[in-house]
Amino acid sequence: MRQTFDENTDPSFGAKHLPLLRAKMVEQGLNGLLVPHEDEHQNEYLPDANERLAWVSGFTGSAGAGVVLMDRAAVFVDGRYTVQAKAQTDLALFERVELNRLAAWLETLSAGSVIGYDPRLHSPDALATLRAAVEKAGATLKVVDPNPIDLAWGDARPAQPQAPVVPHEDRYTGENAAAKRARIGRVIAARGADVAVLTSPSSLAWLFNIRGGDVIRTPLPLGQAVVKADGTAKVFLDPAKVTNELPGWLGDAVTLEAPEALPAALDGLSGQKVLIDPAVSSAWYFDRLETTRASIIRGMDPCALPRAEKNPVEIEGSRQAHIRDGAALTRFLHWVDTVAQKTLPDERAVVEALEGFREATGMLKDLSFDTIAGVGPNGALPHYKPVGAKIRPMEVGSLLLVDGGGQYLDGTTDVTRTMAIGEGTADQRRMFTLVLKGHIAMAVIRFPAGTSGRQLDAIARQPLWNTGFDFDHGTGHGVGSYLGVHEGPQRIAGWGTDQPLLTGMILSNEPGYYREGEWGIRIETLQVVTAPAQIPGGERPMHGFEQLTLAPLDRRLIDVALLTADERAYVDAYHAEVLAKVGPLLAEGVQKDEAALEWLKAQTAPL
Amino acid sequence: MRQTFDENTDPSFGAKHLPLLRAKMVEQGLNGLLVPHEDEHQNEYLPDANERLAWVSGFTGSAGAGVVLMDRAAVFVDGRYTVQAKAQTDLALFERVELNRLAAWLETLSAGSVIGYDPRLHSPDALATLRAAVEKAGATLKVVDPNPIDLAWGDARPAQPQAPVVPHEDRYTGENAAAKRARIGRVIAARGADVAVLTSPSSLAWLFNIRGGDVIRTPLPLGQAVVKADGTAKVFLDPAKVTNELPGWLGDAVTLEAPEALPAALDGLSGQKVLIDPAVSSAWYFDRLETTRASIIRGMDPCALPRAEKNPVEIEGSRQAHIRDGAALTRFLHWVDTVAQKTLPDERAVVEALEGFREATGMLKDLSFDTIAGVGPNGALPHYKPVGAKIRPMEVGSLLLVDGGGQYLDGTTDVTRTMAIGEGTADQRRMFTLVLKGHIAMAVIRFPAGTSGRQLDAIARQPLWNTGFDFDHGTGHGVGSYLGVHEGPQRIAGWGTDQPLLTGMILSNEPGYYREGEWGIRIETLQVVTAPAQIPGGERPMHGFEQLTLAPLDRRLIDVALLTADERAYVDAYHAEVLAKVGPLLAEGVQKDEAALEWLKAQTAPL
Repeated sequence: MRQTFDENTDPSFGAKHLPLLRAKMVEQGLNGLLVPHEDEHQNEYLPDANERLAWVSGFTGSAGAGVVLMDRAAVFVDGRYTVQAKAQTDLALFERVELNRLAAWLETLSAGSVIGYDPRLHSPDALATLRAAVEKAGATLKVVDPNPIDLAWGDARPAQPQAPVVPHEDRYTGENAAAKRARIGRVIAARGADVAVLTSPSSLAWLFNIRGGDVIRTPLPLGQAVVKADGTAKVFLDPAKVTNELPGWLGDAVTLEAPEALPAALDGLSGQKVLIDPAVSSAWYFDRLETTRASIIRGMDPCALPRAEKNPVEIEGSRQAHIRDGAALTRFLHWVDTVAQKTLPDERAVVEALEGFREATGMLKDLSFDTIAGVGPNGALPHYKPVGAKIRPMEVGSLLLVDGGGQYLDGTTDVTRTMAIGEGTADQRRMFTLVLKGHIAMAVIRFPAGTSGRQLDAIARQPLWNTGFDFDHGTGHGVGSYLGVHEGPQRIAGWGTDQPLLTGMILSNEPGYYREGEWGIRIETLQVVTAPAQIPGGERPMHGFEQLTLAPLDRRLIDVALLTADERAYVDAYHAEVLAKVGPLLAEGVQKDEAALEWLKAQTAPL
Repeated sequence: MRQTFDENTDPSFGAKHLPLLRAKMVEQGLNGLLVPHEDEHQNEYLPDANERLAWVSGFTGSAGAGVVLMDRAAVFVDGRYTVQAKAQTDLALFERVELNRLAAWLETLSAGSVIGYDPRLHSPDALATLRAAVEKAGATLKVVDPNPIDLAWGDARPAQPQAPVVPHEDRYTGENAAAKRARIGRVIAARGADVAVLTSPSSLAWLFNIRGGDVIRTPLPLGQAVVKADGTAKVFLDPAKVTNELPGWLGDAVTLEAPEALPAALDGLSGQKVLIDPAVSSAWYFDRLETTRASIIRGMDPCALPRAEKNPVEIEGSRQAHIRDGAALTRFLHWVDTVAQKTLPDERAVVEALEGFREATGMLKDLSFDTIAGVGPNGALPHYKPVGAKIRPMEVGSLLLVDGGGQYLDGTTDVTRTMAIGEGTADQRRMFTLVLKGHIAMAVIRFPAGTSGRQLDAIARQPLWNTGFDFDHGTGHGVGSYLGVHEGPQRIAGWGTDQPLLTGMILSNEPGYYREGEWGIRIETLQVVTAPAQIPGGERPMHGFEQLTLAPLDRRLIDVALLTADERAYVDAYHAEVLAKVGPLLAEGVQKDEAALEWLKAQTAPL
């Protein structure tokens, strides 16, 4: 179940692979090549076969880009990955540049250069920016087909994933696929289109109630669909992934086709009005549809909002997944507080312990992302993963930050808890409590219909801002239903989308504080947007959040004197709910753990 | 000093003026005409000569549009003006439609219609939307020159204003115009332009340190400028407005020209790179520059941010203006609390009393907007002005909301206070205190560099949202320095601009609560963004707000039990500051008022 590319990559990749790549570039008459991190499916996680940037440079971060010229090359990464890029790439071969300097860097290309690009790997908007920069330099962009990286990689390239695509049952989805197709057909018509091209694997999964295993950590089937306004559809999937039960599950209104049939299918849309989302579909689709003289309607993937607005069955599934996951987490926290506080294991052992408790539920399909466990200074790196030489043992006087989640058939979880190793210092208590105050303010906020997460983000920062602190990531991301742990369009961040938060959307609430070189704090729960409801004595119906995640907070780190009476009451009520819902799973069944239950009772007593 | 158009307009305008207009439309071969509220200068307030929509229809709101066809006509207004439009326009002659339905309405025009428009009155973006709708109907847009309204209005049309343009001294501006021109020249060059066309009268006023009187409530000189990257400039002003001292004040690097010379000056920019702001410059400029083959760079008016970021002299001027204005306001609030509580005058008398106290400063140049005084249900209309039949007398048991401001040479003020008439009910106290809690949260918020007002808006709403209430306007707008009381790009609202708040920007903080049919509450102060500063015990420097407005809050309306200790301390400290700064002006000088001073001492005692 674990991705292995991280461990296999090393700084020697550049020396080994750049000559192979440049030979193929020469054959295609190129002076340079754009190497985006993104693949054909524009997902967060890539199958190993599509880790082209990693193969070229050694760099394995989840965002970035490369440019390879004949005499030099560069990798472009954001602040999160500066250190990692330094460790993974060969300084003699690659300049390392801030990702936001990519366009400026391209503007310095030699006039007359021919720079190759693979239109399957770039969104049209991103490509337009790069094209403008290349042309400003007097250079030109040229489509490559096939991609010279794929040619150079050759036989060593892993095969495309072929995980079977399986039905995802109505008892988890709450709405059968025929009803969804009819509904999405009406959305397509309402947008003035005849047909929609869906290229997002999560839309494919959601709309047809299917799941796959092509990508680590997310049960996605890689493929595409063309959906008509009447609700009929063509689905493009590698036949090797099609299980016997699949055609019957999809029904007569859905035709299965092989990926090779997709270009011709797009050509068949000539003259029609085609809805397609430039945020998730690559420039290749737009080029093809323009060539075939389809009338392109650029707009949000019609499945994006319906997928984000979970129905009551999905919400109840998520509640159950979170109770189960909360029991696993409670057992883990109990282990940390007893065994680990004495034996001081390293972060890798901490990760394995948590994953073991999740696996013990008997229902874990996958982790929802690589578990983060950061001791001391590693906890201050928000995207740290315990891999390689930086792994630290637990250390008394420091903090342990653990962020992980599970993929269950009934829901996707994602939770962060921060624990004192030892008793916690006054400084740690102050900072934890400031983060907690922001977390609580977000958990209890009520807001009117139409409010975006952008408007709410500062609510969680106010206690930190007012004392001179901040954290450098958004407060919350959307979460799918047995789908991506990062799901749009909903989010809680002061920048980006204006999408209003809608009833049924699941979002994380995860303010933090990171003291560089010392330790990190984050408190994360998932929460679902509740329907607008009257507040007694109030006037207008207001949305709110129902807390899904159920796991105790480390009471040693709470400075009760810094909490208001309302905040203290919130913690006590939350803890009582954790005990009431998680306790029964520790009392009997596969997660039975009497010691953990006793510990939980003490942890959840009123502050 | 008061605008008179409001009182002069009446519903008979349509019957009188539509036939005149249609006759001119026929002469120009038009089937219809677009009648935007905006004039050539795209300001909030128009000179009477440019109140074309009012002349055609009778409607005098500050936003809206009209369309006149040969057999019917319509006025388009937003929710604020529904009632006013109904009272001011003739239902037999004008359909009344939601402003956001304008494009949809145009889509229903008869195919083949020729619809006139005056490119001087439309921003290019707004025009593009209207053009698309007209063309969707199969109709066409046609430029009018001259505008048939101006022809039909004829001799009855007021003259264009010709208020003298006067120097605004360095002791108020803090930076001489030569330094400003050099600075803006560098901005123009940095944007890759040779020259900028400035069409915003507030940019003209700011850049050349001049003020005029062409527009009510704002000391604007109507005119334009063309500024080169080397800091030299041409200024286009009606010669009748040019005072003898003006050429010397502008200096040798600035050439004065008549408005008639502007088209030729634009033609002279052929082949040059011209920076121009589509948000403030009409389509006429873009058409002209395209015809002359200038290379247009669309971007924010280069004066917009420098104007918004007040320098220390402007901030100190604003402090002094607010102390003086605070003394006038204190005398007014004392009058309300003594004389008016007994005599129960009507809103008009309340307005006159406040204006009288402002005039008694001896330094008032104009009001900064028409004073709002709303008793009871009128207070629940955020944009209410006491004009006509709706004027109410003060009424015991209700609330009085007063919102007004002054234009002083050293600063522009804008303040709202809400007072109990009588003792205030428990309900009124609860709602006032909830609004106050939001107001205080915004007043004390600290925030990192890069934060926009959009991110902060919810801070002021949280106490209302969490109890089931809200208000339907932004929390704050930018304010100029002896310029517009509404100034961009800065604002505090959950929608619109992402402009970060910068040191020296002045903004209002004015949450409210409006109970329809009963009363309204608003608490407004102006505040200036302070430079990022370390907070003791904190890590990152944070911006904050310094309160400029100095006037007591009605303590009868504060429910102390609903305040936290910090909030209560804030009110006490604010009141102490009001007494310390405003008290001396009541003790001696032109605003001497011993009774008001004694009253202020009692009002500002600790809660």
